[in-house]
Formats: sequence, structure tokens, C-alpha cells
Amino acid sequence: MKKGTVFVLSGPAGSGKSTVRERLMNRGLNFHYSVSDTTRAPRGTEKNGVDYGFVTKEQFEEGIKNGNYYEYARYTGEYYGTPVSQLTPYIERGVNVILEIEVAGAMQVKAKDENAVLVMLLPPSYKVLEERLRGRGTESEEKILKRLARAKEEIQLFDKYDYFLLNGDGKIDDCVRQLELIAETQQYKTKNNPDFPRIFFNTEE
Amino acid sequence: MKKGTVFVLSGPAGSGKSTVRERLMNRGLNFHYSVSDTTRAPRGTEKNGVDYGFVTKEQFEEGIKNGNYYEYARYTGEYYGTPVSQLTPYIERGVNVILEIEVAGAMQVKAKDENAVLVMLLPPSYKVLEERLRGRGTESEEKILKRLARAKEEIQLFDKYDYFLLNGDGKIDDCVRQLELIAETQQYKTKNNPDFPRIFFNTEE
Repeated sequence: MKKGTVFVLSGPAGSGKSTVRERLMNRGLNFHYSVSDTTRAPRGTEKNGVDYGFVTKEQFEEGIKNGNYYEYARYTGEYYGTPVSQLTPYIERGVNVILEIEVAGAMQVKAKDENAVLVMLLPPSYKVLEERLRGRGTESEEKILKRLARAKEEIQLFDKYDYFLLNGDGKIDDCVRQLELIAETQQYKTKNNPDFPRIFFNTEE
Repeated sequence: MKKGTVFVLSGPAGSGKSTVRERLMNRGLNFHYSVSDTTRAPRGTEKNGVDYGFVTKEQFEEGIKNGNYYEYARYTGEYYGTPVSQLTPYIERGVNVILEIEVAGAMQVKAKDENAVLVMLLPPSYKVLEERLRGRGTESEEKILKRLARAKEEIQLFDKYDYFLLNGDGKIDDCVRQLELIAETQQYKTKNNPDFPRIFFNTEE
């Protein structure tokens, strides 16, 4: 049976990646959204099992020890990770999985699965990113500067990603469509169909 | 300026590659169809400069010597090749180029340009291929067997191609659309946009 493909969507705060991912999921395609575990506290309306699996530090470290995380990373003291159970069973039965994770985790995914597709979502420029982050008006200057510094680091890994999508103003639906096209074209990749030559010559079909 | 992408379309006789390529060209996209040179004689309604550039063996060999061919190969005693003039000037000014060439030439293109996109068009099975070739009713049994043997050789290079498209009965327009999607997604590849991080940080724009 043909396996599903792992899609990683990364991008700085202010790139709009959650919105793009949510709209992609709403299209009813053959995608499972992998819910990450985290040790950080829930914010606002975040629900356990929907936005994140909220676990304790002890639980997370026990999970690491038991090999329960496909990838994980630590940011500002908190763990974030993809439970194997959110990924492997879906891939095995041909369902694509989308991970919305940070660059460090993305690098781990690519190292484990060279057919994983890494997509970086970006605003058209650093200037636009800065305007968006300041425009929110909800965060301290310190936090904004931290997010900007992090974005600069993230974009250093641009060439480790397979694709990038530009989320300019009003371009969210374009990005969703582009992500959908990228997903569709994966099925035409020869490396995702190594059995095809055998199938081609099997005249019993 | 952003360069165009080289697309190679290969596939056995009976795969329908000329029809797919013609319909793609008729869509008015940003594509130039590279007209190959050949030393073989024109057939039927073939026109010089449209279907092929028909040249003499001496002219072709002089062209090889002068580096005028981007790729070339010899089949059943005749030369086939892509003139540099059909490719480089278009790529340089951002136009995509589509080459309808054989596997040996495709390997040369990939070796010269790792961003070239190799697409193999195939019928769904060897059995269908055989039926199509026999169904034409215009070729000798000897020629059909030669074409089938060649198809077997070609499919050995399946995994050297980036993508493959299945041209089942009535699927030509699906293949054209799939090829168009593959072309579109190339522009979202990070490796085709190595300057983007620089552009991102350039706040002068």
C-alpha cells in the first residue's frame, strides 16, 4: 500500500501558518493534522488534544526516553514534540500528515524521512513581518524583538526547506492552494512510487 | 532576473508525449518548445524548423565539434540533439523550455542542470503499451518488438526521473494539467529562489 507523505509547515510568528494549515484542513483532503505535545501552559482558548497535547515536563521526558516522539525541541525552557502516534499510523495507511513545527524539529523530520516535504511560509519581507508583529499591539517590545531575532535565525535554514510560500497581505488562500498543489504533485514523484516499474510489467493486473 | 526551468518530457512511443506537449504548448503558458535537430529524413507532414531542424550528418557533427548541442544522442544510426540556441537564450530571460527527448539526452540535461525537471510519461502498463503499438496497425512486427524492447530499457531509468505521469486511455488532459501543476510548483522551490533570503531582508524595496 502506498504510504502517506509527511508535510512540515514552518514559518515565523506572523507568517500566518496556523491559518493556512486550518484552511488546508478544512478542504477535506486526505490530511491528518498532527497535534504536538508541549509542556507550556495552555493560552486563551487552546484545548488539550486539539491545539496541543498539554503534558508535564516529567511526562514529556518519560516520552523522550521511551522513543514516543518522532521529533522534539525545546524553546524558552518548554518542550514541543510530535508524538509518533500522531504520525506513523497515518502514514502507514496512506494518509498524509501535516506538522506545524519549528525549524529544529523540521530538520529532525527530514533526517528521518527524506521524502518528507518541508514548506516554509514567509511574509514577503522582514519589514512586513515587523509591521505585522507590531500591528498586533498585544506583545511587549522585548517579545517582538525576540520573535524578530528568531525569524532571522529561521530564515538561515531557507535552503534546507523544499518549498517556500509567500504570504503577502490577502494571499492566504493563494498559499493554501499552492500548498495543495505541492501536495498533489508529490504523488507524481518517482521516488514516492518506487514499485511502479514492477507494477507496469505485471501483466496479471 | 529569475531564470526559466528546463522541463524534459520523455516516454516510449505510444505514451502520447507529443500530444501532451502540444496541448501544454496550446495553453499559452510561459513555455518555449525546444525544436531538436536530427539527421533522419522528414516523415509525413513533418516540417523543418517546426517538428525538427533537419540537418545533414556533416552539419550535425560540425555542430557537436563547435559545442552547439546542449545534449545529443544517436539512435539507429541517426543523430538527435538540442541546439543550445533552443534552450539557453530562453532560460536566461526567464522562459521555461520543454524538451521532448529520449532518456539518454535527459540524463545529459540533468547532469548539466540539476534544477532541470525530468518527467516520464507512461501508459499504465506494458500490456497497454503493447496494445497501443499493435493497434496503430501501421508498423511491422519487427518495428513493434524493437519499440517494446526500447520501452523496457527506458523504464529502467524510471528512478532517474523526478516525476512520472500515467497516460491511461482518455487521460491526456489530466496529464497536461498534472504537468502544468508540476511546472507551477517549481517556482515555489527554495532551490529555484536562492536569492530570496537576501530579498527578504532588503528593506529598501
